[in-house]
Amino acid sequence: MARLNENYLNVKESYLFVEIANRVSKFEKENPDKPVIRLGIGDVTRPLPPIVVKAMEEASADQGRADTFHGYGPEQGYLFLREAVQNYYKSFGASIGTDEIFISDGAKSDTGNITDLFAQDNIVLVPDPVYPVYVDTNTMDGRKLIYMSGNAENDFLPMPDPSVHADIIYLCSPNNPTGAVYSKEQLKEWVDYALANNAIILFDSAYESFISDPSLPRSIFVVEGARKCAIEFCSLSKTAGFTGTRCGYTVVPKELVFPAADGTEMSVNKMWLRRQCTKFNGASYIVQKGAEAVFTPEGLAACHENTEYYQENARIIAKTLDRYGIRYFGGTHSPYIWMECPGHMASWDFFDLLLNEVQVVGTPGEGFGENGKGYFRLTSFNTHENTQAAMDRLASLMEKHFK
Amino acid sequence: MARLNENYLNVKESYLFVEIANRVSKFEKENPDKPVIRLGIGDVTRPLPPIVVKAMEEASADQGRADTFHGYGPEQGYLFLREAVQNYYKSFGASIGTDEIFISDGAKSDTGNITDLFAQDNIVLVPDPVYPVYVDTNTMDGRKLIYMSGNAENDFLPMPDPSVHADIIYLCSPNNPTGAVYSKEQLKEWVDYALANNAIILFDSAYESFISDPSLPRSIFVVEGARKCAIEFCSLSKTAGFTGTRCGYTVVPKELVFPAADGTEMSVNKMWLRRQCTKFNGASYIVQKGAEAVFTPEGLAACHENTEYYQENARIIAKTLDRYGIRYFGGTHSPYIWMECPGHMASWDFFDLLLNEVQVVGTPGEGFGENGKGYFRLTSFNTHENTQAAMDRLASLMEKHFK
Repeated sequence: MARLNENYLNVKESYLFVEIANRVSKFEKENPDKPVIRLGIGDVTRPLPPIVVKAMEEASADQGRADTFHGYGPEQGYLFLREAVQNYYKSFGASIGTDEIFISDGAKSDTGNITDLFAQDNIVLVPDPVYPVYVDTNTMDGRKLIYMSGNAENDFLPMPDPSVHADIIYLCSPNNPTGAVYSKEQLKEWVDYALANNAIILFDSAYESFISDPSLPRSIFVVEGARKCAIEFCSLSKTAGFTGTRCGYTVVPKELVFPAADGTEMSVNKMWLRRQCTKFNGASYIVQKGAEAVFTPEGLAACHENTEYYQENARIIAKTLDRYGIRYFGGTHSPYIWMECPGHMASWDFFDLLLNEVQVVGTPGEGFGENGKGYFRLTSFNTHENTQAAMDRLASLMEKHFK
Repeated sequence: MARLNENYLNVKESYLFVEIANRVSKFEKENPDKPVIRLGIGDVTRPLPPIVVKAMEEASADQGRADTFHGYGPEQGYLFLREAVQNYYKSFGASIGTDEIFISDGAKSDTGNITDLFAQDNIVLVPDPVYPVYVDTNTMDGRKLIYMSGNAENDFLPMPDPSVHADIIYLCSPNNPTGAVYSKEQLKEWVDYALANNAIILFDSAYESFISDPSLPRSIFVVEGARKCAIEFCSLSKTAGFTGTRCGYTVVPKELVFPAADGTEMSVNKMWLRRQCTKFNGASYIVQKGAEAVFTPEGLAACHENTEYYQENARIIAKTLDRYGIRYFGGTHSPYIWMECPGHMASWDFFDLLLNEVQVVGTPGEGFGENGKGYFRLTSFNTHENTQAAMDRLASLMEKHFK
């Protein structure tokens, strides 16, 4: 009899966004005259820059002519795009080989699929609060997870505990959901810890383009020693608005070599290439041409404008929170603002209050883990107008209930 | 210490196409005056139909305007495309729910990733000769493989052996590499065997659009009972020339329910949805719009023209093989022709002879398994002119060496 992977029985159903959608839809049905503003979405809203659209239109046309038609491309991505990513990394001080860059249909695929390369008996360390994909993918493989606490005391930037051993470590900076950003010195501590434990850091840099302070690391590979212990995942989803267009990249340094039980040296770079060649056929040619255009000076400038638009929203939110003395994290180098619920409310209670009284939707922090209790995530992906209106509404709520 | 997945040490390096490329490139360097014709490629060459190109150009433009911009789409694919696939299945007599259809970036991803859902201790039955992905993905998971022999006696269509037990069975029809096609009655035998063994059939129908005899099954779901034991993988790669554009779909019926050790019922459909929601973010919106256009009457007609072009090449090849009494399989409902090497030559020896004497490249059968020894795969993806020229060259070789 076919035996299914019973680890799936241990994967928690993801009720968070379903539950939010249900409560909002119920409210809207009962109150059709009260328009809701959504600051809960983790999805971009600004359209792609014209240079990117043009590149994809041309690539689509290429597919319609015999002399420019593209069939199977390289599984690790076209060299033109890997070179563009390489130069992008150079621009913030990280030196990466084109054969260490793997293009994919998105960072979620890669962060999910990377667990294929690891044995089941690794101890996996994840932060709490956490992006659920890290937890769910390892649970599906039956791997043991341990948590490190992100909290107000450590600015939601947990640091290594030398008394705890881990083999695989997930870090996300700028962080989803908290918006917190590690400094270079802090990442150096993580790299040193990983090297001391012969561990691998899986570094999620999906939000790197929101970093505007050049002293903050946009890649773990600006840290010395990281090439011996880290894999980095990034994507064009937030950098360039590719959430629906789909393109990501993963950097696997060649120095990442670990011994098998019998002493055979295993290269993680070679294993990932083998994995991708076996279970993936490369990202769409059309999308890769669009991604190439992102990395041109014109493309980067246009993407930067979009990021600045979102950052302005974050400032609008921060201003209101500051006015009412609400403590928050993130929002400067991140599209996310992680606020304390006023009056020590539980996060779902605050969700309901905000929705029912002023029709603003955010995300209850406890959806991201135990340490999210009492916190609430707002995002900067709506328009200026809506963001300002939402903050005016929040202000009226504060005046009414928390003065 | 991070422990890597040591099953990767058991995955054979895939030398086949590398070795072919090396030998061809060496020949070309030494004989720049002798142009080579390639009948080895398993990749399409005809451009995409105008209606598909237009849909993707428009979808690219959509991404450049705020009011038509598409961010994250549903992980299982847009309903417009799942409905199109549903109607496509209807057209050859298979009834599938839209919530049983999962859109992806390609069938290789899905055939690879599906093994996530299975426990390690399943016995996996694969044909020999075989598409290497079935073998490699299970080897990466440490699963035990057993082989069933495809050979001239069974027309390269191995049938179930009731004395052999298997839990997971891979079938590919029309077959890669042999071009052989199962009849409905033969598939019924497989379904009955799977039901008797509580096994799951993983049915690869990537080449279904090459079937021109309506009595031959284009989907395993035209067979009674298949909904209780089969998952089907298909893609637009061969149907519509999407090898570089990337779009596939997988059908997972809801009847596919198996008990866990503790008796809990596990739904494969729900597990696959959970897997895709966790490790995948949906196929590109642009590509899905192109795929939707494929399934319009105009799109299907244009794709059919391309398929007929390739089928004419297969006929050109078959005519020459017939003339010289060379036995072959496939070529009627498949882009592949699986020929016996003349004079009982070994497949690599025939490869060298064909390359060195008349500059035609094919694929040695033994690259697909033990049972490929003495066989050679030709493909119909070149132009009429080149295919005819290659056959004229083969004819001259036959006259010279095998008369």
